[in-house]
Amino acid sequence: MNTDLNKHDHIANYLSNNSSSEQLQNDLTSNRTRQYVKFPNGSDCSAEALTKRWQYLDKYNHVDRENCQNIYAGHDLSVYAANIENCIGTIEMPIGIAGPIRVNGTYAQGDFVLPMATTEAALLASYHRGSVLISKAGGCSAILIDEGVTRSPGFAFKTITELAIFSHWLLLNKDKLTEVAKSTSNYCRLIDIRIATEGNHLYLLCDYTTGDAAGQNMVTIATQAICEYIIANTPQQPQYWFVEANCSGDKKSTGQSFSNVRGKKVSVEVHIPKKLVKRYLHTTPERIVDCWRMSALGGVMSGSMGVQGHYANSLAAMFIACGQDAACVAEAAVGITRFEISADGGLYCSATLPNLIVGTVGGGTKLPSQQACLALMQLPKENQARAFAEICAAAALAGEISITGAMAAGDFTKAHKDLARKR
Amino acid sequence: MNTDLNKHDHIANYLSNNSSSEQLQNDLTSNRTRQYVKFPNGSDCSAEALTKRWQYLDKYNHVDRENCQNIYAGHDLSVYAANIENCIGTIEMPIGIAGPIRVNGTYAQGDFVLPMATTEAALLASYHRGSVLISKAGGCSAILIDEGVTRSPGFAFKTITELAIFSHWLLLNKDKLTEVAKSTSNYCRLIDIRIATEGNHLYLLCDYTTGDAAGQNMVTIATQAICEYIIANTPQQPQYWFVEANCSGDKKSTGQSFSNVRGKKVSVEVHIPKKLVKRYLHTTPERIVDCWRMSALGGVMSGSMGVQGHYANSLAAMFIACGQDAACVAEAAVGITRFEISADGGLYCSATLPNLIVGTVGGGTKLPSQQACLALMQLPKENQARAFAEICAAAALAGEISITGAMAAGDFTKAHKDLARKR
Amino acid sequence: MNTDLNKHDHIANYLSNNSSSEQLQNDLTSNRTRQYVKFPNGSDCSAEALTKRWQYLDKYNHVDRENCQNIYAGHDLSVYAANIENCIGTIEMPIGIAGPIRVNGTYAQGDFVLPMATTEAALLASYHRGSVLISKAGGCSAILIDEGVTRSPGFAFKTITELAIFSHWLLLNKDKLTEVAKSTSNYCRLIDIRIATEGNHLYLLCDYTTGDAAGQNMVTIATQAICEYIIANTPQQPQYWFVEANCSGDKKSTGQSFSNVRGKKVSVEVHIPKKLVKRYLHTTPERIVDCWRMSALGGVMSGSMGVQGHYANSLAAMFIACGQDAACVAEAAVGITRFEISADGGLYCSATLPNLIVGTVGGGTKLPSQQACLALMQLPKENQARAFAEICAAAALAGEISITGAMAAGDFTKAHKDLARKR
Amino acid sequence: MNTDLNKHDHIANYLSNNSSSEQLQNDLTSNRTRQYVKFPNGSDCSAEALTKRWQYLDKYNHVDRENCQNIYAGHDLSVYAANIENCIGTIEMPIGIAGPIRVNGTYAQGDFVLPMATTEAALLASYHRGSVLISKAGGCSAILIDEGVTRSPGFAFKTITELAIFSHWLLLNKDKLTEVAKSTSNYCRLIDIRIATEGNHLYLLCDYTTGDAAGQNMVTIATQAICEYIIANTPQQPQYWFVEANCSGDKKSTGQSFSNVRGKKVSVEVHIPKKLVKRYLHTTPERIVDCWRMSALGGVMSGSMGVQGHYANSLAAMFIACGQDAACVAEAAVGITRFEISADGGLYCSATLPNLIVGTVGGGTKLPSQQACLALMQLPKENQARAFAEICAAAALAGEISITGAMAAGDFTKAHKDLARKR
Repeated sequence: MNTDLNKHDHIANYLSNNSSSEQLQNDLTSNRTRQYVKFPNGSDCSAEALTKRWQYLDKYNHVDRENCQNIYAGHDLSVYAANIENCIGTIEMPIGIAGPIRVNGTYAQGDFVLPMATTEAALLASYHRGSVLISKAGGCSAILIDEGVTRSPGFAFKTITELAIFSHWLLLNKDKLTEVAKSTSNYCRLIDIRIATEGNHLYLLCDYTTGDAAGQNMVTIATQAICEYIIANTPQQPQYWFVEANCSGDKKSTGQSFSNVRGKKVSVEVHIPKKLVKRYLHTTPERIVDCWRMSALGGVMSGSMGVQGHYANSLAAMFIACGQDAACVAEAAVGITRFEISADGGLYCSATLPNLIVGTVGGGTKLPSQQACLALMQLPKENQARAFAEICAAAALAGEISITGAMAAGDFTKAHKDLARKR
Repeated sequence: MNTDLNKHDHIANYLSNNSSSEQLQNDLTSNRTRQYVKFPNGSDCSAEALTKRWQYLDKYNHVDRENCQNIYAGHDLSVYAANIENCIGTIEMPIGIAGPIRVNGTYAQGDFVLPMATTEAALLASYHRGSVLISKAGGCSAILIDEGVTRSPGFAFKTITELAIFSHWLLLNKDKLTEVAKSTSNYCRLIDIRIATEGNHLYLLCDYTTGDAAGQNMVTIATQAICEYIIANTPQQPQYWFVEANCSGDKKSTGQSFSNVRGKKVSVEVHIPKKLVKRYLHTTPERIVDCWRMSALGGVMSGSMGVQGHYANSLAAMFIACGQDAACVAEAAVGITRFEISADGGLYCSATLPNLIVGTVGGGTKLPSQQACLALMQLPKENQARAFAEICAAAALAGEISITGAMAAGDFTKAHKDLARKR
Repeated sequence: MNTDLNKHDHIANYLSNNSSSEQLQNDLTSNRTRQYVKFPNGSDCSAEALTKRWQYLDKYNHVDRENCQNIYAGHDLSVYAANIENCIGTIEMPIGIAGPIRVNGTYAQGDFVLPMATTEAALLASYHRGSVLISKAGGCSAILIDEGVTRSPGFAFKTITELAIFSHWLLLNKDKLTEVAKSTSNYCRLIDIRIATEGNHLYLLCDYTTGDAAGQNMVTIATQAICEYIIANTPQQPQYWFVEANCSGDKKSTGQSFSNVRGKKVSVEVHIPKKLVKRYLHTTPERIVDCWRMSALGGVMSGSMGVQGHYANSLAAMFIACGQDAACVAEAAVGITRFEISADGGLYCSATLPNLIVGTVGGGTKLPSQQACLALMQLPKENQARAFAEICAAAALAGEISITGAMAAGDFTKAHKDLARKR
Repeated sequence: MNTDLNKHDHIANYLSNNSSSEQLQNDLTSNRTRQYVKFPNGSDCSAEALTKRWQYLDKYNHVDRENCQNIYAGHDLSVYAANIENCIGTIEMPIGIAGPIRVNGTYAQGDFVLPMATTEAALLASYHRGSVLISKAGGCSAILIDEGVTRSPGFAFKTITELAIFSHWLLLNKDKLTEVAKSTSNYCRLIDIRIATEGNHLYLLCDYTTGDAAGQNMVTIATQAICEYIIANTPQQPQYWFVEANCSGDKKSTGQSFSNVRGKKVSVEVHIPKKLVKRYLHTTPERIVDCWRMSALGGVMSGSMGVQGHYANSLAAMFIACGQDAACVAEAAVGITRFEISADGGLYCSATLPNLIVGTVGGGTKLPSQQACLALMQLPKENQARAFAEICAAAALAGEISITGAMAAGDFTKAHKDLARKR
C-alpha cells in the first residue's frame, strides 16, 4: 500500500487537502461535545416505524419523503422484516436477461436464461453474446467437483503442550462433534474437521454441507454448539476462544478457500468451432489464445488469486438478482480461465470456480423480486443450489469468452463507449 | 483447488451425480441439434421491447408476467436504457440506515447516515452499533492517502530487444501520452505510466485520476487513444497488442492494487474509551485485542490479502444502495484492520482500505433510487467522491469494531440467530 | 514486476546500457556461428576427469589450476561422485556454532549446538544471542505437528467428462496406489492422495512420508510407478501426462504448502521473564511487542507468505552445514512468528514453520564435512529427521527473538556495522 | 497450515510421540535448573580461539577434533574473521561446471561457465544440458530491466493526523535525505522513497542502488543515518520507530518485491529451432508448451508467487559457489518462465527474475574459494554485478528448459534415479 513520493503534489494535496497543520489537526480531531442524534433503529418494518425514520431523515438530513418516492412511497415492507434492520424503503435496480445459455451439467441440464441486475452498460450485452456463442457450439459441460462451507473457531492456550492435549482429545471425539452439529439443523452436516495451529493457538476448521442454503448462519449456529460442547467436555480448557477466528475465508478471497472449496467448486468447458469464433467474435482462436496467455500472465504479474478476467461481473449481477449475499462476490470471484487451440483448430474454453457460495433457500431468496428471478431460470426441483452453481459458472465462462474475444478483436473500447454513452 | 480423497463418497457423488459413465458422458456432451431460441436482445427499454421479452419468457420459460409484478408491472423503464441491455424489469432490495456515523475527515466532515441495501439479517444492526459507538467516541478521523485508476494495455514483441527499443521510445514520449489522454475527457488525467515486462511482453500501466467518477470506462477510452497514438508513432511495432492485458486489477483483488492504490486509499481511526467499550460491546479492550490478534493471524494463515474481518459487507451494501459497480466489491474489500490498547487503557481502532473504487457521477449514480440514497447522505458539494470514499472506510471500521466486539463478548451467534430467525 | 517511469534516466540506462538501438540489436542477437566448446561433462570424479576439466578452464577461461588451489588442489574427490556431475573441486565455507540451544521437544530433548555455514557477518552472533537467551529461560518447547512430501503428476483429458471418469476410478483404487508406492522403497509411504482439477486438467497430489530422508527423489520414483500403474490400468486414458506438473510446491514457497505441510511442520515457543529480556536484549517486552506488531503488519503489507523476520538466515546456514538441499530454503523459509506479553509481564515468543523439508539420510548428509556437522549436534538415534526439524525451528525462533530485540533496542545497525567492518 | 483430521493416527502420533499427557507435559516444560554451558563465542578466528571451541565440543558434545579433520584440521582461518563469528572450521561442498552458456546481454557478453556448488545429484547435469542447448541455439538474449535495494523503517504515531504532518515534511525534504544517504558510502545512493501507511503507522520505503555490492548492510547504515536525521529535524516526533519494519522483502519472497524489484530485475530469452529441441530434449516444441501450460497453471493453483519450475536450484548452487548470501534464495527464486511456439515452429523460451539480489564485492565474494569461482566466470571489469545477474538469469532459463524437456519427454524420473543411485 505504497505511495510514490515522485507524485509529490498529487499526494501532498490529499494528505492535507491544502490545509495547514493546524487546520488538519482541527478537522481530524474527535469531537465528543457536538450533539449526536441516533437513527431510530429496530427491526420493525411497519409503516409507523418507517414514518419515524423518515421524520428523522427529514429533520436531520433535510430530505423530504415526498421527494424520495423512488425509495419509499409508503407501501408495506413487512416482507423484509427478517432480512434487514433500520429499514427505510427499497432500492430499484434494472434487470436484464442474458442467454439463454445451454448447460450440459451434472445438475443443470437445459437452456437457462440468466437474470442479471446491474447498472453498468455493456455488461448484459457481453454475457448475452458469450451465452449465445456457447449455446451455438452445443452448450458447455459443467461439473460440480466439491462442496462445503467452513467456520473456524479459535482456541488460545497457555502453551503448545496444552494445545497438543486439546488436539488429541478433539481427534478422539470427532464423531461426537458431528452429532452435535447435526442436532442444530435438518440440513447442516459436519463433513470434516481440520486443525490449523500457530504457536499456542488452534484454529478448528469445521467443514459443513448445508443442503440448498448458502448456509453461513447455519454453520455459525452449528459451530457455536460444537464449541460449547467442547468447552463443556474437554480435559484441557483454553484461556479464551472465539466462534470464528477469521480463518474460514468468510467474505474475502483467501489462498486456503481457493485451494480447497468454499460453497461449490464447479468446472465448465466448451469446444467452439473456428468458424463460430470468426462469426461471433470477429477474430481467430489463435489470437484469442495469444490474448489469454498474456492476460493469464498479466494476472500472475499483478498477484491475483487464480487467473481470470471478470468473474465478478456476472457473479455480482446474478447474486443481486437472485437473492444471494452480494458481499460474497469478494470470495466467489476467483478461479482459473483457460483457452487453448483444440485438436480440430477450434477454441477450447474452460472456467473453474472453487468458491461459489450460493443457495436457493434462505437469505434473500424468498423475497418478492428475488424469488421471481430465480423462478425465471426454471431450475430443477432437486439439487437446486448445485444446479444454480453450475449455471453461475457457465455464465462466468460466457463472460470470459466475450471479453477475451473483444480484446482480441480490438473492439472492447468501442463496445463500451457506444453502449455507455448512447444517451 | 484440491479435493481430499478421504472424502470419497462425498466427492464421488458430485463427480457423477450417481450416474454411470455412459449417463455422465451423455449428460455432459454438447448438443448442437436441439433448437436454440435467442432472447430478444437489445438496449431498447421501451414498453414494446419489454413486452417482446416477456412474451419470450412466457413462451419458453413458462412464466407469466402477471405473476411477475414484482419485477415488471409495465411501468416505464426508459431511464435505465444507458445502464443495461436486454432489460426485463427491476429488482427491489430493502434499504436500511446505519448511523449516523461521525466522520472527521479531510474531505468528509459531519454526521453521515449510511444507506445500505442488503438481504442479510443482522448486517444493518451490526453497522449501526459500530457507527453509534464511533460517534459516541467523538467520531473517527479519516484521511485520503492516494488516488488513481489503472488500465494496462499489453504489447507483444518478437524479441526483448524490440521491447527495449519500444520502452525507450515510450520513456521519451510520456508527456505526449499525457496530452492524448487529456484530449479524450474533461476529467480523465494520466498521472503516471509504469512499465511491467515479462520476457518479450510489455504491460503498460497507465494510472489516471477521473474526477468524481469511478472512471473505468473513462480510462478505457483514454487508454485506447494512447495505444492508437503509440501504434501510429512508435519506431518499433509490436506483433500484437490488447487495450487491457489483465494487469490492472480490474474486478479482482491483486497484490499490486493492494500495494499501491485502486480508486481511493483511505485510512480511518478512532480511540474508544474503555467505558464505552464496556457499555456498547460488553467486553474489554484487552479481550478485543486478543480477538484481533488471533483474527489477524487467522487471516494470514488462510492466505488473505491484507487482514480484516468483513469489509465486503458494508461495501456491497453501500455500493448497491448508492449506484456503484457492485462487482468492484471483489477488488475493494481488502485492507488492514488494527486494534490496540491505547496509552489511556482504551481501544485504538483503525482500518486502511487501498482499493475503494467509487464515484458520485457516472455508472448507476443518477438512477432514481440510487440518486436518492446518495442524496440522503448529504455529501459535500466539492470532492464528493473523496468524501464518499472516506465515509465508506468509516463504515467499514464500524463493522470491524462491532463484529470483533461480538466475537470477543461471545454474542455473535446469538445476534445472528435472533435477527435472522425472528419471523 | 513494474518499473516506475518517473525513474526515467535510471531505467533508460539499464535498458540500453547507453547504446544505440543498432548496438543493442547487435549485442542481444543470437550468434550461431561463433565457435562453442562444450565443457567436458560427466559424473566421473577421478583425477583424470578433473584434469581434463581444468585443462578446459585453463585453455578457454585462462585460469590456471595452480592459482585455484582453493578449489582444487588435486585431492581425491570420488566421494562426491553420486552427489554432483561435472565436478571440478570443492568450495570451502566457514562454519560457526550458535548456542547451545535448549530444546524441550517431542523428538529433540537437550541442549544442542547449531552448526551454521555462512559468509555473512553478524549472523552467528545474532543466533547465538537468541539461543543463549532461550536456554536461560529454560529452553523452548517444540512440537512436530504434521509431516509429508508431495508430488503432483498432471493428467490432461479431452473433456471434463473423461476427467470425471478417470477420477472416479482413482477413488476406487487408492489402496492399490498405496501398494505400488510401497513397492518402490523401504521408507516411502503414500499417506494420502488429493485431486486438484482445473477444466479438463487433473493434478494428483500424492502425499508421502519418507522416513528420515527429505525424500524428493524417493517420491519422484514412487510417483512414476504410480503413474505407470494408472496408465496401464485406468479405463480412461489421458491425452498426455507429466510426472510432476508444478503443483507440489517443490523448490518454491506456495500458499498450498503453507496451508498444509511440506516436509515437517513444527511449532516452538518460549516464555521469557521480563528481566532476561532486559539483560539480554536491552529493551522491554512491551517495545518488542510493538516492534512485532509493526513488523507482522509490515509483512502483510508487503504481501509475504506468513509473517516472520528472517527464517531464511538460519535455515540456509544450517542446511548448508548439514548436507540439506540448499535450494529448499525457497520453500522452507515461511511461517508465523508471534510475540505477546505473558500474564506475568514477560515475553511470549513462538515460531511455526510448516515447510521444513529436511533429512538426516540421503542427499548430502553422508558427505565428509556435512556428516561431521550433523555429528556435532548429537541428534537422538530415533526419529532423527523429526528431531532435526524441531531444532531447526528452535534456531529460527532464536533468530526472531534476537533480531526483534535489536530492532526494538535500536542497536541493529550498530551490531551489523561493527561485525562486518571490523577488518 | 492445516492438518487433516482424517489422518488421525498419523497426526496423533506426532502430537504426542505416543506419550501420555503427563509425559508430554514433562517433556515440553521449560527447565531452568539444569546446568547450561555457553559456547565460547567471539569473532576471533585465531588457532587459540578455535582450540577453545573444539575443547568445548569435545567436552560437552563428545566429538574429538581428530575425527573432525573434515571440518577443522588446524589450518589458519583468520581470512574468515570478518565473515563469521564463533567459527570452528569450514565445510567443503563439491563444485561442478555447467555450460558454458552463451549470453548476449546488455552487460554480459560471451560464453560463460557456471560454477555451481551442490550436493544434489542430477542438478549439474540438467543445467549443463540446458546451457549447451541454449548455446547451440546461438545463446540467450539478456537484459537488465531495473535495479534497487529497499530498507523500510517504520514510524508509529499517536494519530493519523500526526502521520500526515510527518509525511508532509518528508515530502519536502527528500533531497536532504538523499544527501544524508550519500554521505554514508561511496556506492550507496538513495534513488527513491515511497510511503506506505496503515492506520497511524508509516513505513518509509527507501530504495537504493549499491554499486557492485548486493548491499544489504550498506543500505542499513544509510537508512539508520536517514532515520537519525529525520528524528533530529522533523516537526512531528513519532511515538517510536524501528530502522526496519519488515516491509522491505529482506530474506523472504513478497508480492511487493515481485511487483517491483529487489536487487536486479533481468529478462532472458532464446528461440530454439525445432530440430535442436528434438536432438537435445527428445520431444517436440508442442509437447513442451503443453507441459509449460499445465505447469504454469499448476503454479497458479498451488498459490506460488509468479510461475516457474526450479529457479532455486541454480540460484542456491551459484550463490554458494560465488560468495553470495545463500539466505537470499528465499527472495530471489521467484519470477515467470514462458514457453511458446515461435512463428517458425520452434520454441520460444523466456525467464524473468525480478529479485536477483547479487554482488561481486562485499559479503563472501573475496573469500578464497568464492573468489576463485567468480574468477572462473571471467566477468567483465565494468558493471560486474549486473553482468553476473544476467548470467544467473541465463542459468535459470537453462534449468527451466532442461526440466520441462525432461518432464515432456518422460525421462525426468529416470535421469534422477540413474544419477543419484549410481554408486
